[in-house]
Formats: sequence, structure tokens, C-alpha cells
Amino acid sequence: MYRTHSCGELRLQHKGQQVTLAGWVQRIRNFGGMTFIDLRDRYGITQLTVNDESPAAVRETAAALGREFVLQVTGAVVERSNKNPKIATGDIEIATAAIAVLNPADTPPFTIEDDSDGGEELRARFRYLDLRRAPLQQAIRLRHRMAQEVRSYLDSQQFLEIETPFLIKSTPEGARDFVVPSRMNPGEFYALPQSPQTFKQLLMVAGYDRYFQIVRCFRDEDLRADRQPEFTQIDCEMAFVEREDILQTFEGLAKHLFKSVLGMEWTTAFPRMSYADAINYYGSDKPDIRFDMRISDLTDAVKGKNFAVFDSAPYIGGICVPACADYTRKQLDELTEWVKRPQIGAKGMVYIRRTTDGIKSSIDKFYTPDHLAAIADQCRASQGDLILLLSGDKKKTQEMLGALRIEMGNRLGLRPNNVFAPLWVYDFPLLEWDDETQRFYAMHHPFTSPKPEDLPKFYAADRHAIAQVNANAYDFVLNGVEIGGGSIRIHDSNVQRRMFEVLGFSEEEANYKFGFIINAFRYGAPPHGGIAFGFDRWCALFGGQETIRDYIAFPKNNTGRDVMLDAPSKIDEVQMKELYLKSAL
Amino acid sequence: MYRTHSCGELRLQHKGQQVTLAGWVQRIRNFGGMTFIDLRDRYGITQLTVNDESPAAVRETAAALGREFVLQVTGAVVERSNKNPKIATGDIEIATAAIAVLNPADTPPFTIEDDSDGGEELRARFRYLDLRRAPLQQAIRLRHRMAQEVRSYLDSQQFLEIETPFLIKSTPEGARDFVVPSRMNPGEFYALPQSPQTFKQLLMVAGYDRYFQIVRCFRDEDLRADRQPEFTQIDCEMAFVEREDILQTFEGLAKHLFKSVLGMEWTTAFPRMSYADAINYYGSDKPDIRFDMRISDLTDAVKGKNFAVFDSAPYIGGICVPACADYTRKQLDELTEWVKRPQIGAKGMVYIRRTTDGIKSSIDKFYTPDHLAAIADQCRASQGDLILLLSGDKKKTQEMLGALRIEMGNRLGLRPNNVFAPLWVYDFPLLEWDDETQRFYAMHHPFTSPKPEDLPKFYAADRHAIAQVNANAYDFVLNGVEIGGGSIRIHDSNVQRRMFEVLGFSEEEANYKFGFIINAFRYGAPPHGGIAFGFDRWCALFGGQETIRDYIAFPKNNTGRDVMLDAPSKIDEVQMKELYLKSAL
Repeated sequence: MYRTHSCGELRLQHKGQQVTLAGWVQRIRNFGGMTFIDLRDRYGITQLTVNDESPAAVRETAAALGREFVLQVTGAVVERSNKNPKIATGDIEIATAAIAVLNPADTPPFTIEDDSDGGEELRARFRYLDLRRAPLQQAIRLRHRMAQEVRSYLDSQQFLEIETPFLIKSTPEGARDFVVPSRMNPGEFYALPQSPQTFKQLLMVAGYDRYFQIVRCFRDEDLRADRQPEFTQIDCEMAFVEREDILQTFEGLAKHLFKSVLGMEWTTAFPRMSYADAINYYGSDKPDIRFDMRISDLTDAVKGKNFAVFDSAPYIGGICVPACADYTRKQLDELTEWVKRPQIGAKGMVYIRRTTDGIKSSIDKFYTPDHLAAIADQCRASQGDLILLLSGDKKKTQEMLGALRIEMGNRLGLRPNNVFAPLWVYDFPLLEWDDETQRFYAMHHPFTSPKPEDLPKFYAADRHAIAQVNANAYDFVLNGVEIGGGSIRIHDSNVQRRMFEVLGFSEEEANYKFGFIINAFRYGAPPHGGIAFGFDRWCALFGGQETIRDYIAFPKNNTGRDVMLDAPSKIDEVQMKELYLKSAL
Repeated sequence: MYRTHSCGELRLQHKGQQVTLAGWVQRIRNFGGMTFIDLRDRYGITQLTVNDESPAAVRETAAALGREFVLQVTGAVVERSNKNPKIATGDIEIATAAIAVLNPADTPPFTIEDDSDGGEELRARFRYLDLRRAPLQQAIRLRHRMAQEVRSYLDSQQFLEIETPFLIKSTPEGARDFVVPSRMNPGEFYALPQSPQTFKQLLMVAGYDRYFQIVRCFRDEDLRADRQPEFTQIDCEMAFVEREDILQTFEGLAKHLFKSVLGMEWTTAFPRMSYADAINYYGSDKPDIRFDMRISDLTDAVKGKNFAVFDSAPYIGGICVPACADYTRKQLDELTEWVKRPQIGAKGMVYIRRTTDGIKSSIDKFYTPDHLAAIADQCRASQGDLILLLSGDKKKTQEMLGALRIEMGNRLGLRPNNVFAPLWVYDFPLLEWDDETQRFYAMHHPFTSPKPEDLPKFYAADRHAIAQVNANAYDFVLNGVEIGGGSIRIHDSNVQRRMFEVLGFSEEEANYKFGFIINAFRYGAPPHGGIAFGFDRWCALFGGQETIRDYIAFPKNNTGRDVMLDAPSKIDEVQMKELYLKSAL
């Protein structure tokens, strides 16, 4: 061992001890006869001193040190005259008796500090240096802790961690697969799993009852912001359970993580909300309920007052923004521009101010103060509040109001990253009708069970009735981010057959795509259901961050490249030949 | 929840309770008015009884049941008149009051019993049914336990579990990579990692100090028996350590696993053996030391007695097989044929019997009884022992003797699978000279450090001197199986440069292949080293099995196919086009 202690370990109680530390030079401060060196490792920083009384060799070595040199240092623990309460080792320093340079270092291309001076691209290229920075070390440590606690909780609940294969079969449904040419099976390809969905269902058929895995998944999508081509899921499945059992079990997991990772005790049940309510009140299937500001449906209240915009709109809704009645005209114009941006797409915005001077609005021409007061009341507006109204197609307008609500939440500081609001959302639609291809698509996947009470509709001939069928599905939402989703699966072969029929698959198609699982279900499938959590994102949220990139040791950029490795890259002709492939470029 | 208890839970203490169980029909025994149904789940088997007093509906349903039907059963716990001490629930049975068939089942294609009547191919196709058998359930449970205990131990030793990417860069050194065409980067490919070797070294450069991961690795090799194209490693790395620290740490891991998984306490240090001793005494770099039967070098002892075979051989060695002096001529002929098979490749075999009637051999013509006794003494043969001698090229003959030793160990029952003999092997050669390409290859990988005391030889001009350099490398061997291997890595850039020179890489080549890690090492690399364990094989060994296939939930066959999924498979033209690929078939 190159050290007796870590750089985060020494305290006053070690005073007088001879110790050996090893680590990286964080900082060197030279005050004439006195040099302070901050030595850093994963555990902390310890100050080393070199002065006129230090051995000549030490003084000589110290004079030639640079940032990020790797040192092994021996010396006595000394009480500091000038203590630093900001760091755990701030009471002591090491009177350096010997220094060995274990490795010198070139000057790093950016500073290894909490706020580095390096740009994103540069830091990505030198990821191994960026990973030295404290915020990233904290992120990686948090992720480790999360993973261990997930496993310890699920193990305690008799879940078995079972590894499923990465070289599997490509299925043409859903997102694009990454594929892997097989040299031993010419002309054939494996696919990398988008999730272990079918395997976990097969494990239920195989009787494993409670399965989990923290597992890498792959999706060859055009990368939207903050998506990665490979990502990690906490993947879980249970047999002989109903929805309530799953919600209870994984609410237990979430509470365990809150407590063991963040030290937050959760004594009440997590709130639950139907998909319909989420859309109606929050304009989103993943409401951020850290703040209220719910959407009010004002359609009935505002119609018939000769305001053409509202009279012609199928839907009018509003949110009440607390204590913003004093917004200036300029602020309101800016907000109007904000909702009119293509990303939101509103045609315009109406406001109502409820002030001590009475009620004012941009539609005073059409509505009497009494009318406006009634609208404000319906929005539960108090004096000093501002009401913002949007109108148009119902679903789109609700989404716009949802986006405006989040924006106002941000502006008013109602979304602090150290406050957590978990939420279960349930009763999602089972199917989505696509006008272009004139067929239904599964909202989740074709094994999601319809709600038992909706089975009559599911077997109806009328597609509008079928469209109303709800799925026995649920999402786990945290601070407006969907971090988990799952469902009770179909285990009845008649229901499954009907599902394929509704999706427009012939029996041959269904067999080609899902043959092995349809077969498996013929040999005694238990009732089962499960859930999968986005592990990268859950870690980021617990770390108080929006972006997942810092919570992945070696992430890829927006074009799916690892700029540190310079991957992907060309392979040589021999390799192409062995795989029976030619470039079509 | 579909059940109040599992099928492995009920005991006499539950007598009289109304319970609900769910599971699969294991067996139905019908004795006229009395039907016994064994209901199985992951936790055990419980006997259900249906008789003349059972409700009519129950009798009717029971009459129509088949093997592997999924049932939900309610009834009272009753004390059995005829107890079954072989199963944990053998004191009780359930007087069935209600049965619901949750799912019927087709007759399975083979019996779901400890010894199934299904062939390997059939069971592979219906893996989800094979996984229902108790031996496989035990294997999967053992693997789960192993994984949890590995993590709990390493977590307690301040290791961080850090996930490394699966979509990385192809490097042309070593075994063949599986590659993944990138749609977003036309003409370019990712590679799947053969191991996270470079990433764990980068993590050491990044200051993470103690890293581990239980991680899938991929190798596109022609599959030898019991190899899988994807396999799982316990991958570990430590910084600021020397070899002894690593051996201590991971001996601690092994002891923790012995204790927590097998209940075996290990109070003494694991034996250690140099590579040279392993080859000389066991003819193998992974000796099975569950039994002795060491190889004796008899070269000096047998030469010069006019036996041309020995006189012309560079090496003669022998093993002493205990208590086999009474082997018949037929047995000895059969053994001779065994060593002459192409897999072993010996030209012939000499035997010496030390019996109460004196000493006899197949070379009595050339050696006096005194000579033979001296040879027998050198082999530490007692009366009743049989000595077997092989001769020829030293290394090859040692290997043959090693194989013969293992064979005799098997024949004599000296290799019981519930006895464990761990062993560290150290001081492997660093390099291997290849006559064909006239260059050195790294025995492990080009980052393995030479032993410090061998550095002068490493810098020698003479390739025979270089060939003698030992690596600071070590293997962990269990019962003759190498389950772990690692080394102290090079952290000095001069040594690394010399390594590339010795391997015949130009600076450009080295940069092309390993540029990012060479670069990383310029910014302050700490001394570090690590180890990786074959997790599949360790599980199999702890389970008392030779083959890893039962310890992998969904393994592939010898041609790398998943016969359950029927993968790999063709992909469609659209997908090929999107990847800018054409078939060269």
C-alpha cells in the first residue's frame, strides 16, 4: 500500500503521527519561504507544508511540482495555526518529511475545480480529467450508493437478480434496434436489447416470481437532448400480483432510496393521479406537483360573451399565477411571445389581473368585472394573482397550459431541486390510433393488459369504443419527470389474441414477431406485471441535476459519439469480409 | 396478491389456518376417491388434497387438471397422516376448498423434474420450461446470492461500482470484437467490449481508487466447449497498491463468498505458487491441488541406462498414483492408449509398480530393481503405488503429465465437487515469442507491468533475455480452473514506451490503437493494478458443476445461437440500407 491514510481522513486526533499519503496535487501556493500543497484523492484534500526547515530534497522536489502530479508524501500530522473550517481535514496539515513523485503530469487542458474553465467538448475529450472534479465524483458516488441500495432493498423483498442476454433477436416493432452481425452465422444479425421485456416475462413463465436487474439497454434513436444510445434501467417483474401489489412494492423501493441515499423519511403514501386528471389539471402525463397552479377548464365560463376567439375555441383553460398581478405590460408581452414560440405554438394569450384596485384584463371589452371576478374565482385567484388563459383544441391547449405552468413555476422559483414530489399516474390509454396508417399502436407494448372493467369495450367492433380502453398501466413521476413505467401484463391467451387482432397483426405476423413468447404462454403463464425505472435519470434527480450526462461515467454526445475514444470508427476490410458485409457508401 | 403464503412456507404451526396458494401443478396422483396435487412455486411444493368431501366444483376442476396448469387454491392447512420428511412442507397438506385455474397449460415437451427426460436441444428451445426445474432454480438463486455478496463485500471495502460503456471502439489487438454498425455515423462501427480493461485504468487515472463492476463482456471467438460469446466478469481495479494489497483484498472477497454462500469458514491463507512451480509440479498453470500426485522430474535419474527412448528425450517426468500398483495389464494398456490419443499426444507410457512382491516395470530390461526403487523413492511412492512416466519435449511432456494426473484424479475420485482448493499462481512470463511472425505478444495485455527486479532484462537488447522477464501478474485458481486473473499495470510512461517497442509497435501504431489511454497517462497516472473474475464459472464451481450453461439464464449454444429466440436472424433490407451496409454473401 502506498499510503497509511487517505487525504480525507486525518483529524486533530492524529496530531503527532507519522503518516504517508498519496494523491494528486490540487494546488500549490508559494509564499517565499513557505509552500502549501493541497494533495487530493477521492476522499478529500490534505494540506502539505514545505518550509525552510524541510529537508533539502523535499524543498527541491516541491519547487518542481505542477498541478495534477501524483505524489507519495510522508510527514508528521501538525495542528494548523490557521484552521480551515470548510474542509474536513482543515484542522491539520502535514509537515512534509519526504516527497516521491509517483508520476509527473502535463498541465491539464482545463482546471480541475468545481467550476472548470473547460468547455463541454474539451471536457468530454478528456473525460478522465473531468471525472476528477468534485461534482462528478459526487455524482458517481451517488450512483454507486443508489445501485447498492436498490439491490439491497429488492434482495430483502426476495427479488432475484437475473442477467438476461445482450445478443438477442431483432424485432421490427418499436424503436430501432442496434444490430450486431454474426460471423459464425453468415448474413445474420443479433440485436442489442431495447429492454429485457420479453425475458422478464419468460422468467415469470419460468416461475421466478420476483425478478430484477440493473441493466443496460440500447436504442438507436435520433438523439434528442439528454438521451443516450445506451442507458441503464432498473428492470423488475413480479408474478401472482395485482397493480396494488406492484405500486406498494416499488413505493417501498422509492422510500428506501429517499431514506438511505438522501436521508429523507417518507411517512405518508405517495399521491396518485389518473392520466385523465393529469392531463386536465396539469396538461401533462407527468405533472410536477412540487407546486399547485392547476389548470382550470374555463370553456363554459367564458363562452357567449361575443369574444370571437373564445366563442370559436373548443376549449379555454387558465392557470392562476400567485402574486403576479403587478406584472408590467412589458412582462406580459414577453410572456405572450413566449407562448407563441413554435415550441409552444399558442396563437395568443389572455390575462386577468386581480388587484386591490379591482380586476383588469386584456379582454375588458367583452367581459364585465363581475364576469371576470367569476372567472378568477373559478381559478381560485386571490387578490394579487395573475390569471393566464389559452384557448384552442382541447388536448393541445392543455399541453400549452402545462408548459406555461412549468415556465411560471421556474420563474417563480417553485421548482427547487432539493424538494421532491413523487407521484403515481395510472389508467393510461391502452392504444393510440394512427390516422396515417389507419391502425392502432400499443401505447406501451402489446403485452400490456387492458383494465378488466374495460374488456367489453376492448372486444367491441367500433374503433371509437376500443380507443377508450384504459391500460392497467402506471408511471412513477418525480418532479415532473417520468422515471418509471410499467403495467400488468396480459396472461390470458384470448386477450392476447384479441390484442394482436386490434393491432392489425395477422397470426403469421404475430408469430414471426413474438412467436417464442406466445409459445411460452401456452405452457402455464402466471398473472404478472412489472415496472422499469430510468436509473440514469433517477440518479440525476436525486443529485439535484436535470442532465443525466454527469451521472454516467463515460457518456456519448448528441451524435452518439464517444469523443474520448473517438468511437464509432472505421473497421478494416478483413473484419468486414469476415462478417460477410460490404459498405454501401 | 394472489396468495397468502408461498408453496414452501407452511408448517405444522399453520395448522387450521385458511390459506391461499398459487403455483404450478407438479404432479397429480389419483387414488380413486382421493386426489393429491403437488403445487409448486419458486419456494417449494405443497400437497393439496381433493376427496369425496371436497366441494363438487373443486372435484370437477381437479379432474380436468394437467401438469403445469397454473392454479390459485384456497383451503385449510391440515396435518398429514402420512408425513413426508423429504420436503420442508411435508408435515402438512391443504384440504382444498376452492380451485381457480389461472391458466391452463399444454403438456410440456419434457418432464419438469430434477432429471428431465428432455434432450439438451429440446430443453434449450423451451428454456423457460427447463428453468422451472429445481437444479436450474438453485443455480439461478446461487448466482443471485453470489452477485449480492460480491457487491456487499466490495462496497464494504470502499469500492465503487461504476458502469462502463458497451458501445466502444474496436481495437485490432487480442480476440475478435463483435461490432455494431452506427446509423448516425455512416460507415463506422462501435465494438462491444471484450472487457472494461481500458476504462478501469482510466478510472484509476480519474482518481476513483477502488472500482468494481459485475459486467457483461463479449468475445467473437470460435466457441470451444463451454464458452459463451457473452459472459460476465467481476471486474476490479485499485490504485496506490502493490500486488500483496490486491491478493489480500480479493482473498478477502473469496473468503467472504465461501462463508456467505457456502457456509465455509476459511481460517488460513490461500496457498500460493509460482508459475514455474505450477508447470514443473502440476504440468498446468492452473493446478488442481485438491490432490497431490505431483510431477517428479526424473530426467537425471533415468538417463544413461541404454533405454534409447529416455536417453534421447530432453525430459522425463513421472507421477505416483497411490494404491494402483495392482492395475492389470489391460488397465495399463488402456491408460497407454489414453495418453496416446491426439488430445494428449504421448508416444508411449512407462509404468513402475511398487508392490509387496518387489518392484516391477515395463522397462525391467534396462533398469535394475535398485534403479527402479531409486526412481520410485524420488516419486515418493509407497508400497502399492503405481508410477507413470512420460518423456519428450519438456513443456509438452509436463502438460501431458498434468493431463494424466487430472485423469487419474478423476478415476480415483480425488476431485470431489464439494471440496474446494483455492490457489494463487504468480510470476507469469510477461511475453510470448511467436516464431511465425517473429515478434513478442503480451501474455495478458500490453499494460501489464514487468516485475521490478526484471527491468534490466526488459531493457536488454537480446530477445532471449527479454523472454525471461516475468510479469507482475497473478491468477486465482479454484479446483484446477482459472477463475481470476490480473496484474499490476504499467504506470511509468518510459516502461510503457519500452513495452510497445518490445511488441514491435511503431509510435503511430501504438497511438492509433491505444492513443486515448497513452494520452490519459500523461496527466498523472497513479500506480494501480487489478483483477477480473469469470463470474459464470465461479458460480458453476460453487454450485458443484463443471459447465457454466446452467448458471446462465438464457445461454447460447456452441454456434453462438439462442435456439429459444432463434437468434441471430436476418434483418430486412431497409435496416441494412439505413446502416449503409450490403451483404457480401
